[in-house]
Amino acid sequence: MKVLDSTSFVPLYHQLKEIIIENIENNIWKPGDKIPSEHQLREQYNVSRNTVKKAIEDLVQEGTLYRVQGTGTFVNKPKIEQSLSGFYSFSQVLKDKGLRPKDILLELEQVKAPQKIASALQINKDEEVIMLKRLRCANDEPIILETSYLPVNRVDDLEKMKLVGKTPLYDILANDFNVVVSSAKETFEPVLILEHEASQLNVHEGSPALLLERIAYDSMRRPVEYCKSIVRGDRCRFYTELI
Amino acid sequence: MKVLDSTSFVPLYHQLKEIIIENIENNIWKPGDKIPSEHQLREQYNVSRNTVKKAIEDLVQEGTLYRVQGTGTFVNKPKIEQSLSGFYSFSQVLKDKGLRPKDILLELEQVKAPQKIASALQINKDEEVIMLKRLRCANDEPIILETSYLPVNRVDDLEKMKLVGKTPLYDILANDFNVVVSSAKETFEPVLILEHEASQLNVHEGSPALLLERIAYDSMRRPVEYCKSIVRGDRCRFYTELI
Repeated sequence: MKVLDSTSFVPLYHQLKEIIIENIENNIWKPGDKIPSEHQLREQYNVSRNTVKKAIEDLVQEGTLYRVQGTGTFVNKPKIEQSLSGFYSFSQVLKDKGLRPKDILLELEQVKAPQKIASALQINKDEEVIMLKRLRCANDEPIILETSYLPVNRVDDLEKMKLVGKTPLYDILANDFNVVVSSAKETFEPVLILEHEASQLNVHEGSPALLLERIAYDSMRRPVEYCKSIVRGDRCRFYTELI
Repeated sequence: MKVLDSTSFVPLYHQLKEIIIENIENNIWKPGDKIPSEHQLREQYNVSRNTVKKAIEDLVQEGTLYRVQGTGTFVNKPKIEQSLSGFYSFSQVLKDKGLRPKDILLELEQVKAPQKIASALQINKDEEVIMLKRLRCANDEPIILETSYLPVNRVDDLEKMKLVGKTPLYDILANDFNVVVSSAKETFEPVLILEHEASQLNVHEGSPALLLERIAYDSMRRPVEYCKSIVRGDRCRFYTELI
């Protein structure tokens, strides 16, 4: 068994973190496995309560481990990585990773646009929009809660939207409505998951999530979609390359 | 005073949200102002407890409002927007917005690289790195907790790093060490703020934050910096344009 080196310039909690990470990377501890308790780790590595606490806290924050109240600390599944640099189809990202995408249609209705959505779509407040709310899953695990708003003056057939789940939304827009999404503006901010989102995403209220808002434009730079997504932070990570 | 239209297809909580947003945009309620209590809003707009609760919850999640336990709900300052699409200097972003940047140097030492950082920098574990921990502020308000690791085989003078705060880090690297950062890989994930970060960032433990990890490369694509930032979610938003 590995021992910690108290004479090293690497802090002890950092050394302990790396032993835990190594155990996970070497498949000694697998996703869903319970790791030894804080007490056991203290005894095993002869370190203080604080050292163990800080190592575990860091790994929970980074999403490597997760806690279940009153039960223990467990190994998380690796996060799903998505690029921020270009257009990505969530379904394709999942397929590339060998995960099975599934979309559950939660709501589909024609509504009047509230001010914020009307502004994003450059239409008047109370003009009609199609509202499409989906739960996007990977291997039946809910990952993203996504609500799209499409202006009825461009997308005027609610029935065709029912194909979503079988056909990607942007393919339906292109094929059935001649609306080709060719650019987008996205904002990202970390938020806490609300009660009603928590039950749908199968996580606790107050869990970390990314709030992603997108305005998608056609080739004439006319807005054709406003979309708001709540992305589970314990299951997703985003990356970008800067050149 | 505005009234809510219960015959509209726009849900009542959405209508209430927009009235609150309008009041803020029209400067009737300013950053730091306390808004009416949930009870007052219920009476004023003749809506249910749930409608008020959902409107406020949404606005707190989006960062427009914040709650102070036992005191009330207040208007937040507008978030600082940063681009994800290219290199950005946080100090420059602040200056462009008329905010005063300030960096507080928290730690500066030469340490042995833990495995994770060594891998990122393509050096051996336990090789020496300079560790530079900064609190980055806007108008004296702490916003980002940032820790950079620089390999000593490229950046070998810890003293020169003390200029950080007066001179941007990448300018010091270029001018004093001939290390020109020319590309980077970044990952983003939403996390909850830990206890020790909370006190430095002056927010509550468990607040939403973005964990940003960057590996910066020189023009020969050799890694020259590994950087981990904790960014306050209540004060920052990121955006990108997809083309």
